[in-house]
Amino acid sequence: MTARLDRQIAFLSEADRLKSVLRASRLHDASRFENSAEHSWHVMLYALVLADQAGPEVHIDRVLKMLLLHDLVEIDAGDNPIHGAVDHAAMAEAEAAAADRIFGLLPPDQEAAFRALWEEFETAQTPDAIFAKSIDRVQTPIGNLENGGGSWIDYSVSFTQLDARVGVPIRRGAPGLWDWLLPKLESFFTKS
Amino acid sequence: MTARLDRQIAFLSEADRLKSVLRASRLHDASRFENSAEHSWHVMLYALVLADQAGPEVHIDRVLKMLLLHDLVEIDAGDNPIHGAVDHAAMAEAEAAAADRIFGLLPPDQEAAFRALWEEFETAQTPDAIFAKSIDRVQTPIGNLENGGGSWIDYSVSFTQLDARVGVPIRRGAPGLWDWLLPKLESFFTKS
Repeated sequence: MTARLDRQIAFLSEADRLKSVLRASRLHDASRFENSAEHSWHVMLYALVLADQAGPEVHIDRVLKMLLLHDLVEIDAGDNPIHGAVDHAAMAEAEAAAADRIFGLLPPDQEAAFRALWEEFETAQTPDAIFAKSIDRVQTPIGNLENGGGSWIDYSVSFTQLDARVGVPIRRGAPGLWDWLLPKLESFFTKS
Repeated sequence: MTARLDRQIAFLSEADRLKSVLRASRLHDASRFENSAEHSWHVMLYALVLADQAGPEVHIDRVLKMLLLHDLVEIDAGDNPIHGAVDHAAMAEAEAAAADRIFGLLPPDQEAAFRALWEEFETAQTPDAIFAKSIDRVQTPIGNLENGGGSWIDYSVSFTQLDARVGVPIRRGAPGLWDWLLPKLESFFTKS
């Protein structure tokens, strides 16, 4: 059991570095950029609170685990702002290498289980992953509405771009949430 | 549904403030103090990875939810360093008032469910809460061992104090974890 615990704690210590990965989004009070660890906590809270927006086939306990793990690869691969110019093939390669290294710190049974959950999230084809993706995408717009536009201003995002990158996945996983959000987004983008 | 979503999003927006509550503990690289939101994420990862340290009567999915919610009261009541001088009655009163206000932002059914989970964690009498408490207490010592002592140095903590405040709850909820940690702690406190 000691060797198993050594590996588990090595993984948990490495995970601490996610607190130093900065995202393009700011806190609601605009005081600083958000990091990927606190973002992960916040989207888990979103998933728990907004579970009634998911279809009956969604298992919130699995969604929470996906969201807990979903950004760990950013320790090596960094955060790629959703509105930035990204080479998607290079990003996928960097993230796969990061998953090899980071999940590889764990005992083999946990490496396989966590890696499978992360890949399910990334692929976004199961009901749990589709809902998890929609929740991951809805947190930043709500923050941006509160802090005066945040990353939308920094990246000169149009409503059409926002709809393609954020609207599509939210409508797919949590359409009721999109119905609630849309008039607020339209109001912001009409004024700005 | 709109009124329900309005309340849920108001709660989730208020929760953003937990990212600005600083703890006495530092990141593993000692670059800055840790905040309570990223700490909450990290202890959830601990609980998931170290689930095999829990007894068979522990439900990890409930433990994760407890840890997701456990520090929200700090938005109003602040973080009370475990090794600081604390008026426990005043702290309990401030945290209960914080729970009234913060969970009170939610729709009544979720307010009741979340409040009950938070109180179960605080009371630490059920197997799930006892394990959650032990996990909450084990993260900082592991960080302190990595960053040269951290809050132990700041608060001039002795091994006897550490054993009372951290050793007791860890042994109660995760004795195997304590067996792993103890020689490392003894080595640090013998040298320092």
